[in-house]
Amino acid sequence: MSQNNFEVSNSNNDSNILSENLNKLSVWEQEMDKVEKEVDVYRLKLAQPMYANRRSILKKIPKFWYIILAENDEFSDYASPEDLKYLEFIDDIYVHYPVVDNDSGTSTNNPRDFDITISFKKSSLTEAQSVTKSFKIVVRENGEELLESLPVEVKWPQQLSKINPHLIKEKTNGGKSMTTEDKKRYRAGMKSFFSWFAWTGKKPGKEFRNGEDLANLIADDIFVNALKYYIVALSNESGEEDSEEEEDTSEGEELDLSDVEVEGKKRTLGDDIVDAPCEKKVKQSSSV
Amino acid sequence: MSQNNFEVSNSNNDSNILSENLNKLSVWEQEMDKVEKEVDVYRLKLAQPMYANRRSILKKIPKFWYIILAENDEFSDYASPEDLKYLEFIDDIYVHYPVVDNDSGTSTNNPRDFDITISFKKSSLTEAQSVTKSFKIVVRENGEELLESLPVEVKWPQQLSKINPHLIKEKTNGGKSMTTEDKKRYRAGMKSFFSWFAWTGKKPGKEFRNGEDLANLIADDIFVNALKYYIVALSNESGEEDSEEEEDTSEGEELDLSDVEVEGKKRTLGDDIVDAPCEKKVKQSSSV
Repeated sequence: MSQNNFEVSNSNNDSNILSENLNKLSVWEQEMDKVEKEVDVYRLKLAQPMYANRRSILKKIPKFWYIILAENDEFSDYASPEDLKYLEFIDDIYVHYPVVDNDSGTSTNNPRDFDITISFKKSSLTEAQSVTKSFKIVVRENGEELLESLPVEVKWPQQLSKINPHLIKEKTNGGKSMTTEDKKRYRAGMKSFFSWFAWTGKKPGKEFRNGEDLANLIADDIFVNALKYYIVALSNESGEEDSEEEEDTSEGEELDLSDVEVEGKKRTLGDDIVDAPCEKKVKQSSSV
Repeated sequence: MSQNNFEVSNSNNDSNILSENLNKLSVWEQEMDKVEKEVDVYRLKLAQPMYANRRSILKKIPKFWYIILAENDEFSDYASPEDLKYLEFIDDIYVHYPVVDNDSGTSTNNPRDFDITISFKKSSLTEAQSVTKSFKIVVRENGEELLESLPVEVKWPQQLSKINPHLIKEKTNGGKSMTTEDKKRYRAGMKSFFSWFAWTGKKPGKEFRNGEDLANLIADDIFVNALKYYIVALSNESGEEDSEEEEDTSEGEELDLSDVEVEGKKRTLGDDIVDAPCEKKVKQSSSV
């Protein structure tokens, strides 16, 4: 823990004291960063087994992730309308932080590096597959933190073959002989959620757009707040049905996700149906 | 960890499975709340000694808190313009979480309960005093969490006596004989930062307005992000002077609060002066 050396040109004594204490603050801040990192790791290690438990429960709830994704305004920015019917067959979304597997804590990796696993079940529209994409935090020279990732293979739905950028490139001599129509399809394919799996963060303008934002949306928001979003989505659905069978649905007896905090208020499914059928966004909880 | 019992009226098997898994989720969520609380306490216990160290450094930096408060747009909502010259003599703002003193962890208090200490130094305008106000989280029946506090005594600056609500009440038979002028002064006094110390959270409309928001602003934002705000405030000042002595100030050699993260970018004081003289709000870091 060594302080940096500075040429202090001002000979004024007050200024020296100020300078000395600002240096101390600078050292303090580095120490505090370490504390924050330690807390991060502690939290991730406690939370990961909890999320592993949740994962096995969620697999038994039909269309759990689809119900969330279809209702999520932000997510819709990252998927094309054509993607939607395939997303229905997602039966697992899982975020894993490799740091939790690392007992020694000596890894040089950033503890916030994470892997996202998305699984599709076999259906008439999709093949069974489980795809894991890893994201690493890289720090630029100016101190900015960015995500990078390696492309991973994903089986596109048969029906989307015609816009699959990879296939289009193959068919057109690496893209050299693309027709106007090919280019149009290529661009459409680039906007598909399935192109996100090839995102690297290193080819801006030439790959899935805002892949980093989507990774962060899934890891920091959708995955963490999944239960809250699910309740809100269900209550929206119920709200739409209310006109015909209000009495029945407002009971909500089959569901008791009590004590779920949405927008700072705790509410149950029953509350949602009665009071807030239109609330779509859930405030992400932030700790200090 | 007992599951609640529900009458499940729907005899459909799928529905039973759904119901069972939603109950499991409800239990899971309660467990997760406990994990979050445990992480909170862990963080507070690690951070508190760090903040104690910072406190002793900050006391040697002239007008540290004043520089922050005077530049903080949000804080200005909670202080009257007349307050400003007295805030210059604040030489300590400190937030303490009583849970860190509680080894057994068996306290029934909310681990997020906190105390705010604000100290003024002796000056021609202020008396020396250190005032600690405690805030407790109370949970309403609807699940909403609110802060409450007991009034604490604070010595008002002599020059503000005429708007001191306490004195006005005393002079006017408990407020019964208030003139229109008295009422005007009373209301002005209620808007003073010094009235916040009497805030309880139980007399809406009859005490300092939004006392809870101010407590949270200090505890969750100003206190935690103090160094970032200080750098931004200093760079704003430098920015204003830049027109005359740009070369000199842009060196920023006396200060090296390097690695300070503002709006997701790390920057040094030098950066601020050169690049962002107008950035006033610092994004509060949020963890997942």
